[in-house]
Amino acid sequence: SKNSLNSVKESRYLANCIPTLPLGFVYLQLARRSSSEYRIEADTFGELKVPVDKYYGAQTVRSTMNFKIGGPSERMPIQVIKAFGILKRAAAEVNKDYGLDPRLADAIVQAADEVAAGKLDDHFPLVVWQTGSGTQSNMNVNEVISNRAIEILGGKLGSKDPVHPNDHVNKSQSSNDTFPTAMHIAAAKEVHEVLLPGLQHLHDALHAKAVEFKDIIKIGRTHTQDAVPLSLGQEFGGYVQQVKYSIERVKTAMPRIYELAAGGTAVGTGLNTRIGFAEKVAATVASLTGLPFVTAPNKFEALAAHDALVELSGALNTVAVSMMKIANDIRFLGSGPRSGLGELCLPENEPGSSIMPGKVNPTQCEAMTMVAAQVMGNNVAVTIGGSNGHFELNVFKPMMIKNVLNSARLLGDASVSFTDNCVVGIEANIDRINKLMNESLMLVTALNPHIGYDKAAKIAKTAHKEGGNLKETAIKLGYLTAEEFDAWVKPHEMLGPK
Amino acid sequence: SKNSLNSVKESRYLANCIPTLPLGFVYLQLARRSSSEYRIEADTFGELKVPVDKYYGAQTVRSTMNFKIGGPSERMPIQVIKAFGILKRAAAEVNKDYGLDPRLADAIVQAADEVAAGKLDDHFPLVVWQTGSGTQSNMNVNEVISNRAIEILGGKLGSKDPVHPNDHVNKSQSSNDTFPTAMHIAAAKEVHEVLLPGLQHLHDALHAKAVEFKDIIKIGRTHTQDAVPLSLGQEFGGYVQQVKYSIERVKTAMPRIYELAAGGTAVGTGLNTRIGFAEKVAATVASLTGLPFVTAPNKFEALAAHDALVELSGALNTVAVSMMKIANDIRFLGSGPRSGLGELCLPENEPGSSIMPGKVNPTQCEAMTMVAAQVMGNNVAVTIGGSNGHFELNVFKPMMIKNVLNSARLLGDASVSFTDNCVVGIEANIDRINKLMNESLMLVTALNPHIGYDKAAKIAKTAHKEGGNLKETAIKLGYLTAEEFDAWVKPHEMLGPK
Amino acid sequence: SKNSLNSVKESRYLANCIPTLPLGFVYLQLARRSSSEYRIEADTFGELKVPVDKYYGAQTVRSTMNFKIGGPSERMPIQVIKAFGILKRAAAEVNKDYGLDPRLADAIVQAADEVAAGKLDDHFPLVVWQTGSGTQSNMNVNEVISNRAIEILGGKLGSKDPVHPNDHVNKSQSSNDTFPTAMHIAAAKEVHEVLLPGLQHLHDALHAKAVEFKDIIKIGRTHTQDAVPLSLGQEFGGYVQQVKYSIERVKTAMPRIYELAAGGTAVGTGLNTRIGFAEKVAATVASLTGLPFVTAPNKFEALAAHDALVELSGALNTVAVSMMKIANDIRFLGSGPRSGLGELCLPENEPGSSIMPGKVNPTQCEAMTMVAAQVMGNNVAVTIGGSNGHFELNVFKPMMIKNVLNSARLLGDASVSFTDNCVVGIEANIDRINKLMNESLMLVTALNPHIGYDKAAKIAKTAHKEGGNLKETAIKLGYLTAEEFDAWVKPHEMLGPK
Amino acid sequence: SKNSLNSVKESRYLANCIPTLPLGFVYLQLARRSSSEYRIEADTFGELKVPVDKYYGAQTVRSTMNFKIGGPSERMPIQVIKAFGILKRAAAEVNKDYGLDPRLADAIVQAADEVAAGKLDDHFPLVVWQTGSGTQSNMNVNEVISNRAIEILGGKLGSKDPVHPNDHVNKSQSSNDTFPTAMHIAAAKEVHEVLLPGLQHLHDALHAKAVEFKDIIKIGRTHTQDAVPLSLGQEFGGYVQQVKYSIERVKTAMPRIYELAAGGTAVGTGLNTRIGFAEKVAATVASLTGLPFVTAPNKFEALAAHDALVELSGALNTVAVSMMKIANDIRFLGSGPRSGLGELCLPENEPGSSIMPGKVNPTQCEAMTMVAAQVMGNNVAVTIGGSNGHFELNVFKPMMIKNVLNSARLLGDASVSFTDNCVVGIEANIDRINKLMNESLMLVTALNPHIGYDKAAKIAKTAHKEGGNLKETAIKLGYLTAEEFDAWVKPHEMLGPK
Repeated sequence: SKNSLNSVKESRYLANCIPTLPLGFVYLQLARRSSSEYRIEADTFGELKVPVDKYYGAQTVRSTMNFKIGGPSERMPIQVIKAFGILKRAAAEVNKDYGLDPRLADAIVQAADEVAAGKLDDHFPLVVWQTGSGTQSNMNVNEVISNRAIEILGGKLGSKDPVHPNDHVNKSQSSNDTFPTAMHIAAAKEVHEVLLPGLQHLHDALHAKAVEFKDIIKIGRTHTQDAVPLSLGQEFGGYVQQVKYSIERVKTAMPRIYELAAGGTAVGTGLNTRIGFAEKVAATVASLTGLPFVTAPNKFEALAAHDALVELSGALNTVAVSMMKIANDIRFLGSGPRSGLGELCLPENEPGSSIMPGKVNPTQCEAMTMVAAQVMGNNVAVTIGGSNGHFELNVFKPMMIKNVLNSARLLGDASVSFTDNCVVGIEANIDRINKLMNESLMLVTALNPHIGYDKAAKIAKTAHKEGGNLKETAIKLGYLTAEEFDAWVKPHEMLGPK
Repeated sequence: SKNSLNSVKESRYLANCIPTLPLGFVYLQLARRSSSEYRIEADTFGELKVPVDKYYGAQTVRSTMNFKIGGPSERMPIQVIKAFGILKRAAAEVNKDYGLDPRLADAIVQAADEVAAGKLDDHFPLVVWQTGSGTQSNMNVNEVISNRAIEILGGKLGSKDPVHPNDHVNKSQSSNDTFPTAMHIAAAKEVHEVLLPGLQHLHDALHAKAVEFKDIIKIGRTHTQDAVPLSLGQEFGGYVQQVKYSIERVKTAMPRIYELAAGGTAVGTGLNTRIGFAEKVAATVASLTGLPFVTAPNKFEALAAHDALVELSGALNTVAVSMMKIANDIRFLGSGPRSGLGELCLPENEPGSSIMPGKVNPTQCEAMTMVAAQVMGNNVAVTIGGSNGHFELNVFKPMMIKNVLNSARLLGDASVSFTDNCVVGIEANIDRINKLMNESLMLVTALNPHIGYDKAAKIAKTAHKEGGNLKETAIKLGYLTAEEFDAWVKPHEMLGPK
Repeated sequence: SKNSLNSVKESRYLANCIPTLPLGFVYLQLARRSSSEYRIEADTFGELKVPVDKYYGAQTVRSTMNFKIGGPSERMPIQVIKAFGILKRAAAEVNKDYGLDPRLADAIVQAADEVAAGKLDDHFPLVVWQTGSGTQSNMNVNEVISNRAIEILGGKLGSKDPVHPNDHVNKSQSSNDTFPTAMHIAAAKEVHEVLLPGLQHLHDALHAKAVEFKDIIKIGRTHTQDAVPLSLGQEFGGYVQQVKYSIERVKTAMPRIYELAAGGTAVGTGLNTRIGFAEKVAATVASLTGLPFVTAPNKFEALAAHDALVELSGALNTVAVSMMKIANDIRFLGSGPRSGLGELCLPENEPGSSIMPGKVNPTQCEAMTMVAAQVMGNNVAVTIGGSNGHFELNVFKPMMIKNVLNSARLLGDASVSFTDNCVVGIEANIDRINKLMNESLMLVTALNPHIGYDKAAKIAKTAHKEGGNLKETAIKLGYLTAEEFDAWVKPHEMLGPK
Repeated sequence: SKNSLNSVKESRYLANCIPTLPLGFVYLQLARRSSSEYRIEADTFGELKVPVDKYYGAQTVRSTMNFKIGGPSERMPIQVIKAFGILKRAAAEVNKDYGLDPRLADAIVQAADEVAAGKLDDHFPLVVWQTGSGTQSNMNVNEVISNRAIEILGGKLGSKDPVHPNDHVNKSQSSNDTFPTAMHIAAAKEVHEVLLPGLQHLHDALHAKAVEFKDIIKIGRTHTQDAVPLSLGQEFGGYVQQVKYSIERVKTAMPRIYELAAGGTAVGTGLNTRIGFAEKVAATVASLTGLPFVTAPNKFEALAAHDALVELSGALNTVAVSMMKIANDIRFLGSGPRSGLGELCLPENEPGSSIMPGKVNPTQCEAMTMVAAQVMGNNVAVTIGGSNGHFELNVFKPMMIKNVLNSARLLGDASVSFTDNCVVGIEANIDRINKLMNESLMLVTALNPHIGYDKAAKIAKTAHKEGGNLKETAIKLGYLTAEEFDAWVKPHEMLGPK
């Protein structure tokens, strides 16, 4: 079953992130052309050269000229592009209902589907660091779909005829409502396809360990110092609860993510749309994605603020906090092999050192805690972006969604990696656990109800000072008999209320 | 009605924060003694001098000696102390059910009530920057209640007889479960008593303005640039939605705050408690506060992690983001009086400048945005603290609750101040609004469905370049007739879909 | 010497933070009056009741009415008020040079000195959450100094005659340049009086420990796992370096803090000042404080941006990062007493648990790490405030300085507390250190140059698997002789290059 | 000159980020093989299939299997890989001095040079989210250099003969000291090659504008409200100062970045290195890069803490704060065209809206402010990572350097983009500026020294209330004559002290 899990994971991993030539690409005419040739396209600012093997047009080229910031690794997340594909298809279908020429609408639907399916990923070169409304990425999508649809209908690329990027593909839409719509679609899909399955996977593995370890009694540690005992199962049960709540927290933030801005157009009024357009688009997107999207009850809020993304990022931040705790605990409990706490044996996955032979490190914990730190930083970026909207528009949109998607993806992926390469292979070092537990001075706490806090403290302090054990010390101090000690101090009876 | 509101607010304000001599204080015997006298008390580390006019004991004094960090302004928030009062009363009642001498229990209840009522505020000198479990503040509470109960019962202060701070006041408890319980009680009360009423107050005032302004058509602004029109009521409606969702977000975070750690004792196992203790304490606290507290389903998570506070802080962070947007908009829309946007007239509350006579500033917006920035910073502190728990205990507790309470209080107070001293007095500058709206080039957008995006762009660009108006330019370019322009460009028909 | 240190620290602590009745207060006439009586004062907005026992005037009262946010614990830091005292004195002296009536100037100087000396602390009730320029606190200072100077000159309080708060006390000044000036003075003093001495104190104590521990060889730990040895002195030497660099980082940020905005007045132009005023005020402040203040080379930057405070806060953030590392290490190295790493014995300062008798916790580490988290959060608040200035003024001033001062104070105080109550008392647990070091498998690394990485790895892995020791395993595997092992694996020769 | 600038920029842009086939690639034998074939390589954990067209080996493959987190966009920054190339060359040269077979050393040098030159970029597939020491990326480099050197020497790939990745390429090194060394080299180069030139470019352009605008008198704005006048040149002069200080702040953080950890090996002791190795490596790296690198004075600090990166990130955070202010100001001053402040005309670079024809937006300001928000978030991630080191090693290295490099690159690139596409084309809208300035009520401030603050306030308030101008109102109120007004209120004399 680990194998089958891995292969599911693998295929998702490959599907999502390795930018190989997509399967269907051979059917696209452009692929046959060389990248050194150009055609001329124009936007309202004038003409520009466009590579003939690309579907995008003048506004996209203009953006690549004006925003040379960060390079390819800073491109608009492909999930946003795919979400745009879904949205543009939905809009075309609804526009068809409202009178858009069915021939054009159907071609737009087909081209948009290709965008949504990732078949045209190479046609979206723009970086996140562009206009803050994402207008240029919306136009990139409009241009690609328009040209691809023109191609499907036998027209000339760049002619805007018979499918115009603004008048047809962007019909009843503005960047100001489509980009936030794409943000919400992309975030919701990433949460459902990567984050939640990852967290559930981790939850289940930790839960299995909590059950496996339920009878192993070990010393507890508070303030990093020795404390009263608990079972290793109870300790892992705390982690299980954290992950369970992580899932709840993310789900709790979703209702406002399911609200789509589409239909608000430029400032939220819905200018140039028809009554019912917003609702129908949301319903279509819901149908295409299987997620419960609805039209946002207030489009002004949906354009001018992205509090919903800040809220979701806050949930991801809380998940990161949980992950940091769990991964830290596991690496410390697994520290050693001889000079650490050594209660857990973690899987050995790779050589740990380029200089220290035989060293094995808790690398999955390290990857997870690095991810956690990144998510916490991302949350601040999202917060600052979210707070800086003005009037009818927030113009930190691309930055915000980049960070939210990054956090969701990293947490989801890291959860799977951490589970498969660490959690499932954790073993309890029973000998070590027993040794530490039996030596502990904090078992003295069980005496409180019998002899009071102050006398119990005297026993523990004396034993610590003299290096003795609790029982002998207690008897020597005359506070109780050997029989009483044995009757009162039973670790296995210290694991719950009486 | 404004008056009555103010006086309600006023009394809360005074009650919560001005550390005057509490009313009931004259009945406390200690008040009659001089602060320069001392009595001797001891803890397990030895004897110490305690001021005779204070109820606290040796461990409290020891903490003041060991933690000289930050001074009085850094004291443990009084809300935590009061929450401890509620918890200690609840625990005493439940302990009585389980066999604690009723005479002692009743005295503890009476003393705890005085703590909860704020009558003993002067007896809690400890700062936040102490042990990370809050043990010393728990002991401060135990000592004060013990000594006050001893006094009630006619005993000698510092004798620990007949009421021992550990064995009786802290019975069935540990700092490790009581401090988180007090954190949750304090946070829930602050949210319900300060934050949510404040947000509701702001919501209602903004909603009233949205209704008042519903027929005022104004220019929209996206990217801070002129855009298509909307009504001023719609613009305020966006703010209303943000505050409405702020309230929802805070409420959404509360279920996990209602979970109490009490009954977990030292490491979450509930050692030295009785079966049922945890549930009964939670029920009693719920009854005393009127809030739906329950016992935490997993005590290990409740001691070792404070994800629930991180989650709440994340909600407060999102509220801060909303507040920053709203306050920023209002100050920019009210900028001027002659060289700004000038669409709103904000109330003039105080002289705005020590050098520029007659200047009036949007000071309430400034206070609100400063609060927002603080809350965002607090959230990072809470996040870092929350992520650094180890094993069975998170030891960033005092820092975490200080920041959460600070955020809740500041947002709640600032909402009321902003509402009463700014929002309710906002007036629309109709002349200015009309002038700007009528001059706007972006009304051209209404022509898109009639003449297409490219021609409409030509009109707008030409008018901008030549300084002309849209209608004349459109006719001159030959794209439409005067009649068509008048029929198609109607601002009051641009406020919604058709 | 510990005693003398403590008493120095103590007196600073008491002087700075306990708001007792100041010594000189009895000489102030107001102290004799009851707080329930009022006089009438007016500002440009009208008349208001002012308590007769207070020196402040109408604008201060108006601010208390308009900004009921957060309560007394949120008051403008007293360091800012004292810095204002210094600045107002300097301005009065320079104004006198430029023609201000010497009688008025001298009275202002006397009153300002009282403010700087903390004699009038009770007359500054305003909170941080006011106008973002700090105008109301500047006016609070102007009013207090004006009334106190009037009193000194025999006039009638509230009459503004012969000393007017704006025309005389605020002469050649604006809140917009005085508040930033006071921010820089307060920050520089806090850094020099609290933070740097605290860090130096910690540095020296850690350095003494590094020397003391220089010959103790112990196991190193990387990835929290066993690694090759180093000396305990080397380990502490890393901490010493971090603190040394902490001091350098703070000092590096100071040159721009020493630049004063005074003389820029309302927007940076210096309107209503005289040529030379700015330079003379800076020189006077430098003389009064003994710190190298100069006039800011660009007053526009000095009013509109507070990048210098963001920079200083960034340095404090880095210090916090260092402190977190050091305190974390010490608590983990001191974990136990029996089930932790146990290499260090930390001083036992107070009872560690209200339920577990005899428990002692690394509480100073906990206070320090909580402080570190707070400083990191403060840095975000300062960053957000700093980024939100507009045009000629940043209006997040009070929030920014509150956080910077808080960070400096907490780090400085916590350094002293951590040093005196933890670092100086740390002892090495030699037996434990030796035991762990000798068992370590990572000593195998010394064999790399002799037998290569791959064979060395085989030895370590085999020994780990079989529970054997390195020497026996190495011989059994036939890689070397006993003599070779002894010659090559010498922990005391593994502490440096050869 | 704009052209030449652009082409310089262009070539850097292309060189750094577009992963085209590197020029020298055709000379590498591997390029001729298909990617579907495999060879077998082994590490201490066993054998693995390695693609025959790749130089990396088993440990790299193992890492790709164990860390499927985030996909290709999350790869280790190529700057780190190139820095490793420099370091490995330097180490080989120094090792040769200390006795490494010159034939092997020279082959390593040649291969390392290819890595440094970016010729082998496709051979570094690992993501940031791996072990926190970057061990796997160090081994990836060791394997690639080893195999490439073997190839150069005619050996068999994967044989580790005659060039072993650990024993030869990694000789006298550990991941624990090489990765931090590569971090510092990469950060220093990015700062010098991208960030500082970008900031200087922006500085110069702003300075030119400040000079160009020096005689344009305009209204000042404080609290976003009308204030006293200044020149547009003075306003831009504030921005110039901010950028000037940005450059200083970054430079100030560099000395500690120039300190290299190389020579510390596993825990900082320098085990398995020779005396002088550390110093020679640093000198060689300095020589290769032209930057003043030195060996870190304390290697324990250099491995266990990355405070230097936190410090640099703090400087970048402060730069981001400055950029946010400048870009915000420019977009607001350029808001309009008809309903905003409209004092500046910003270059029109692209269509601003997909729905509003003719709309032009301050898109470069938006890109810059998004970058600023990202940098602030990155700083928190770096801070958290920096604070979480334990004992002899910080294991958040890859995450930390990723964020620092990202911040430096984004700020540098955005500075150039903002300069070239916005700042250089900014024009003053003189008519608008004059109109606003002349209407301003705040010119009244010039009357303070003549008639006092209170009377001046009366004039301004009356004029505001009645809509009148200052002069008429002042005369009507009888406070001065027309001649006095004209003599006292001269905007061009309000730009400085007298």
